[in-house]
Amino acid sequence: MTWQETAKNKRDSVMAAIPQEWILDTIPSATEVPNAILFIDSKLTEKERAITYSTILELQPQIQSGKLSALEVTKAFAHRSALLHQLTNCCAEIFFDKAFETATYQDEFFAQHGRTIGPLHGIPLSAKDQINLEGIDSAMGFVSLINNPIEKQDVSKLAIILQQMGAIFFIKTTTPPAMMAYTTTSNIYGETVNVYNRKVSCGGSSGGEGALIGGRGAPLGWGTDIGGSIRVPSSFAGIYGLRGSTNRLPYCKLTNSFADQPVLSSVVGPMASDLQDLKYVMELVIQAEPWKFDPKCPPIPWRDPEQQVPAGKLVFALQSWNKLVMPSPPVKRALAIVKEKLIDAGHDVIEWDPPISSMTATQVAVDVYGADGYKEVVDYTQASGEPIVPEILSLAGGATLPKGVGHIHEHWDHAKRRYEVQQAVDDYWFNETTKLTGTGRPVDGIICPVWDTPSFKTRDIGKFYGDYVAQFNTLDYSVVVVPVLCADKLEDTKPSRSEFVSDKDEELWEYYDAELVDGCPVGVQVVAPRWQEETAIGLAEVVDGCLRKSGS
Amino acid sequence: MTWQETAKNKRDSVMAAIPQEWILDTIPSATEVPNAILFIDSKLTEKERAITYSTILELQPQIQSGKLSALEVTKAFAHRSALLHQLTNCCAEIFFDKAFETATYQDEFFAQHGRTIGPLHGIPLSAKDQINLEGIDSAMGFVSLINNPIEKQDVSKLAIILQQMGAIFFIKTTTPPAMMAYTTTSNIYGETVNVYNRKVSCGGSSGGEGALIGGRGAPLGWGTDIGGSIRVPSSFAGIYGLRGSTNRLPYCKLTNSFADQPVLSSVVGPMASDLQDLKYVMELVIQAEPWKFDPKCPPIPWRDPEQQVPAGKLVFALQSWNKLVMPSPPVKRALAIVKEKLIDAGHDVIEWDPPISSMTATQVAVDVYGADGYKEVVDYTQASGEPIVPEILSLAGGATLPKGVGHIHEHWDHAKRRYEVQQAVDDYWFNETTKLTGTGRPVDGIICPVWDTPSFKTRDIGKFYGDYVAQFNTLDYSVVVVPVLCADKLEDTKPSRSEFVSDKDEELWEYYDAELVDGCPVGVQVVAPRWQEETAIGLAEVVDGCLRKSGS
Repeated sequence: MTWQETAKNKRDSVMAAIPQEWILDTIPSATEVPNAILFIDSKLTEKERAITYSTILELQPQIQSGKLSALEVTKAFAHRSALLHQLTNCCAEIFFDKAFETATYQDEFFAQHGRTIGPLHGIPLSAKDQINLEGIDSAMGFVSLINNPIEKQDVSKLAIILQQMGAIFFIKTTTPPAMMAYTTTSNIYGETVNVYNRKVSCGGSSGGEGALIGGRGAPLGWGTDIGGSIRVPSSFAGIYGLRGSTNRLPYCKLTNSFADQPVLSSVVGPMASDLQDLKYVMELVIQAEPWKFDPKCPPIPWRDPEQQVPAGKLVFALQSWNKLVMPSPPVKRALAIVKEKLIDAGHDVIEWDPPISSMTATQVAVDVYGADGYKEVVDYTQASGEPIVPEILSLAGGATLPKGVGHIHEHWDHAKRRYEVQQAVDDYWFNETTKLTGTGRPVDGIICPVWDTPSFKTRDIGKFYGDYVAQFNTLDYSVVVVPVLCADKLEDTKPSRSEFVSDKDEELWEYYDAELVDGCPVGVQVVAPRWQEETAIGLAEVVDGCLRKSGS
Repeated sequence: MTWQETAKNKRDSVMAAIPQEWILDTIPSATEVPNAILFIDSKLTEKERAITYSTILELQPQIQSGKLSALEVTKAFAHRSALLHQLTNCCAEIFFDKAFETATYQDEFFAQHGRTIGPLHGIPLSAKDQINLEGIDSAMGFVSLINNPIEKQDVSKLAIILQQMGAIFFIKTTTPPAMMAYTTTSNIYGETVNVYNRKVSCGGSSGGEGALIGGRGAPLGWGTDIGGSIRVPSSFAGIYGLRGSTNRLPYCKLTNSFADQPVLSSVVGPMASDLQDLKYVMELVIQAEPWKFDPKCPPIPWRDPEQQVPAGKLVFALQSWNKLVMPSPPVKRALAIVKEKLIDAGHDVIEWDPPISSMTATQVAVDVYGADGYKEVVDYTQASGEPIVPEILSLAGGATLPKGVGHIHEHWDHAKRRYEVQQAVDDYWFNETTKLTGTGRPVDGIICPVWDTPSFKTRDIGKFYGDYVAQFNTLDYSVVVVPVLCADKLEDTKPSRSEFVSDKDEELWEYYDAELVDGCPVGVQVVAPRWQEETAIGLAEVVDGCLRKSGS
């Protein structure tokens, strides 16, 4: 079988898993229907809309009281996801049958025992394709990995923890091959598009997850992030996303590219349309003591996010730009709004000016990504004959394969540089900023853009640096993306400029097209120190609270 | 200058730092005076003996009440250390002048303010040569690293934390080059010998520290361990030693060999003649929140060791041997005593029989040690012209340099194998053993030999596997060495044997010489799960309590 046939069979099997009555007669074009969400709303019943617009914390009491069954909740999200897939191409695997079977079992259990099987009983969750579920492929965008269903002993520990609490997995979402792109395109599925604006990219690499959660196809799902892959699609989809520090959440038995590369690891994290849901599920997972499932997880107990944030005035440090490229108008506007609202609420915002630039910190990560010369990518693509998707070379900073290290000491030197960057920026944050805040404390958190633009045409991924996100992979800080606004072609017009700080600054100014990105969400990164996921959530609640305060 | 001259100058400078009145006229031979401790006792005043036989917790109230000054405590340990150095060759650096200056400052502070500067005010601590102290070399056994005094910004974070509490560093202790041996010999200092039996090795690589603490040259000191380097010299010196999980204690700014090797790291840990002192200082360091000093430390708070150990009957799993070499008579006797005393105290002891052998787990670590083909060792030795000390090739399992990895994926494969071993043994411990204990819990801890023999002639290091200790570096479990007995040539005679399970079994049976190791201490490893340093200490207290119970 050719790789094209294998890929087509996979696509067909995904579509075949959708009940016939949920298949759309015609798919409107991106020009006709840029925003998938409103279109999908019109195809659902009132009850389906009510369910799929509910948060986990809203669904939970209704399920626990028997007002909603696990099956009807699962079916509502399944229907919505099926439509979302047809409009955004976000699903890598669909297995509604298994999910409905589990939901039916849970409903029987509830009928028999009068109680739920756990706190996530009847809650459908989605997962990026890397998360191993029994009997389902984890191809992560490579044709050669299709038709290798996961066996019981290889199910992801995170999935086991969640399933034991009652969570119901029902779909897996698309990734670029090897998760090595800030957009989501593969030879298996083609391109996944932005759920708010189907003309542009959903971001990546957890782009399928972003489109799905952004479209409320599930209340919460799981992405991964080694260079921004949770945060970029979260921002592009108007949702919350958490990139915690390495191994705070269990990565054990996820399928991964460069899985054993020991210098700078991918993390798994939640993406959700509601911040309280995200916090709740994080707490559930940490309370399950993941260190008993995954040798890499340190036993850091759950700490109440509200307790982690000092009372009274907070001081945030703002990285308003990277001094190389001026962010596009909607991104600048998002930062200005956040700053203004924080100050209005009595907080302070100073400048983030560490001794190591975001580009320098990012370069460490980029060098690690290319450490093996993408040998694994070459091997996986050669195994099927598929070409290397050009988008995935963008993370290595070019159009060709990176060279890779020669002597192993060059790789150890990556570890050294990473550690030095961490020490220098930690020292700046924990010691130097204390002199600037007036609170006697270091700055309480960092606010930072996610990306230069709200989104882009997927083929243009190579134009961007990604340093706003990737710096925090090198630093290993805890980051929550908080949605701020949607780009508005009337408000976010291109300013006229004649002076630029770099060629890239000019290139991206020219590239900006207010019409193209109209309606695309924009989020910001809210950053806490390493291993302080609860603090990042607590700070995100502060920012979120200021943004959504009624009347403001 | 030849490397021999540079080395001699270093040795001479160490001796020159000892006050003339503490220089022995003649050094007795190992045959004349095998045990250094009794000899040294006879050279000290009663007060010096009283001070140097006190624990930190005994000294602390006397210092805080003004009964003892920081200077007299420091001088007493300095005198004892100076004598120990002359008998065992344990000191790499001596800087009494600086220490006395600090002690004098502390006494003045105390006189002026009526309080100490911190909980370790006036407590002299020793440190393996790797620990960076301002103005002092950290040559770690390489001639080429002599005459590179550490600058202020490179002082070890651990030292800063301890110094802020008042601890006074006054000596640094010997290591083999690159810390790559279970014995302590270098071209700079020659051989460091066992403080209880100067005919045999002090073990290694924290061998100078073992000899010093075993001889009560300091109440507590700091070693490092990437394959047993804290535990072997602790056992050989009759002291307690803690190898915690990776980065529980801050390693930041220690000089290290293969410092940036990211797969399996060395850890720093305390070695002490008293278990309560060890516990106390561990708590102090963790309470100082090392994660604010070292980006690699996860913020795991201090947990009370007594609270970590279940009340009532405990079940220990005993690894009585590695199924390849029968431990020598004193080691077997030590295990039998521990088992008997635990059972007498109402605990249970079952067999430790994990799916991965200690040799298989060790092989992962050995492959990591050799990953770069010892390039760093070659570079450092070539820089001065000194030959490679043959002892340091023993850890790589042979008499020649290891080959090192070719493609970087071979190194990533080390990480993969390590993780798989951890998963398999964790599963056995946390799940399988629960079926065997009868308590509803997994086994509470593992008891295990440290070494096949109480000690050995240093040149014979290559005969040994080291798998009892190195397995726990691969597994990254928390281990405390507890001293059990001293070898007794009358009691620990060589049994007659005609059947052997391996050539090595026969070789080491032949090698055993009850006369040679007479008087050498033997300890056992008490093992808790990963990141459970407090549990390891709590279990060590249980074992220790059973062993030292009066009347037993």
